[in-house]
Amino acid sequence: MDSRPIGIFDSGLGGLTVVSEIMRQLPHEQTLYFGDTARFPYGPRSAEELRGFVFEIIDFLLIYDVKFIVIACNSASAAALEAAQQFYSIPIIGVIEPGARAAVQATRNRRVGVIGTQATISSGSYITSMKTIDAGVKAYSLACPELADFVERDEITGERVEGAIKWYLDPLVRDGIDSLILGCTHYPLLSETIAKVAGDDITLISSAEETARELKEFLQRKDSFREGGVRPEPRFFSSGDEGVFGRLGARFLGQEIARVERVHLPFKAKVNRVEKG
Amino acid sequence: MDSRPIGIFDSGLGGLTVVSEIMRQLPHEQTLYFGDTARFPYGPRSAEELRGFVFEIIDFLLIYDVKFIVIACNSASAAALEAAQQFYSIPIIGVIEPGARAAVQATRNRRVGVIGTQATISSGSYITSMKTIDAGVKAYSLACPELADFVERDEITGERVEGAIKWYLDPLVRDGIDSLILGCTHYPLLSETIAKVAGDDITLISSAEETARELKEFLQRKDSFREGGVRPEPRFFSSGDEGVFGRLGARFLGQEIARVERVHLPFKAKVNRVEKG
Repeated sequence: MDSRPIGIFDSGLGGLTVVSEIMRQLPHEQTLYFGDTARFPYGPRSAEELRGFVFEIIDFLLIYDVKFIVIACNSASAAALEAAQQFYSIPIIGVIEPGARAAVQATRNRRVGVIGTQATISSGSYITSMKTIDAGVKAYSLACPELADFVERDEITGERVEGAIKWYLDPLVRDGIDSLILGCTHYPLLSETIAKVAGDDITLISSAEETARELKEFLQRKDSFREGGVRPEPRFFSSGDEGVFGRLGARFLGQEIARVERVHLPFKAKVNRVEKG
Repeated sequence: MDSRPIGIFDSGLGGLTVVSEIMRQLPHEQTLYFGDTARFPYGPRSAEELRGFVFEIIDFLLIYDVKFIVIACNSASAAALEAAQQFYSIPIIGVIEPGARAAVQATRNRRVGVIGTQATISSGSYITSMKTIDAGVKAYSLACPELADFVERDEITGERVEGAIKWYLDPLVRDGIDSLILGCTHYPLLSETIAKVAGDDITLISSAEETARELKEFLQRKDSFREGGVRPEPRFFSSGDEGVFGRLGARFLGQEIARVERVHLPFKAKVNRVEKG
């Protein structure tokens, strides 16, 4: 048993789809979520810059004595998971390996599509991860930068977003994929529209759902579940405006967010300033 | 639904521990097992030679229209899984990735021991596989060629085998491992004795159990379970003596083996000869 909280973070609000899945699959666990909304989006940033952000955020979450870190951001997972795992002593998972693994298991014709941000797709991380499980899988990946913007604008159904999805998916469908990884934490909100465009023959893989599933496996094997009892309140931290986080975040979380705490990163630099003061 | 059988093979009888786990976890599936007893052991053979054997055996199993192949041999998985996945169109898994994954999930101090044959340990496959899931895990691996011989001789308890296990494990225990991968399909039969020597603080990971678990996940996600009903009889093929296979195999399988079919490999060469004849 280990009743410490689980720390989860993303560039903005998309990672709340992972929190939502963790709350569904692990209802007794306490979650702490940090959304780096002040520096959103991560997609166009360099891997080096993202590694710096990830280390700052993990240092911040460790203040709350978290037992586990989930990098609930595809771009940050691709850029910094390995470095973070090598540096920190607590277990850290990202969203890429769980999604890749589920896709390899689900595909029947071994043709898998991957959609995500520019940073995620450029990294090739989903492909590398799938190949370690099935060296013969064929991956078809495509950066869809516009799709996260539709979600940010809350335009998740309708002609325009359907048209954009169709435009992106058409080449993947022609390549004969039978499974599609939603490789961005924003995309679960588009899953109904994506399913409508993709048709019944393509299985959608949600990294959010798979990551929560993987987290559950880890906690089970380590015998590190939180002791049952009263369901703990999740806590939310934001580097940007609390009001915006609360309003927009509710859509990603699928429930109201009562309270958001504003924090200023880089946390370490701030601590140093206080100590020196 | 997919009612075709699952093809499983190993260098000898050790892979029957994987069949036993598949029969336990997937009681409705039909299993076909090929034990390459005529060419046992694989441990000291080169990777190139093992790849040749693996392709021959898969060609043989495909005659029976199997839906899935399990390379239930650590040495063969390390040498040939990737090449086989790239060549064949049906899904193929080995025993290494499932064991590696379970160990990474189970360890608390991120120090994992691996024991296996010379071929398995030399390949470094468990370490590579663990690092793709947790780049910060520390792996301590050791070839234990003698242990499979104890199992072959049915000497699975007693002073001598305990002494050998203690001699092998002592350095790993001093390295502070908290989890130990049994990286040879012979070792599940030694697990009680290994547990006795290792003590309660070290979690044993059975690749046999984890591989069956992974197979189940694959079939579930692909919606490829066999339709229920009468439990099908497993079939056993041997490249060596049927009588010996039946007698010794029962220990690995944990139940009697009614019938063993002798086959002569290389199958392809034989077919060619017949065609040419």
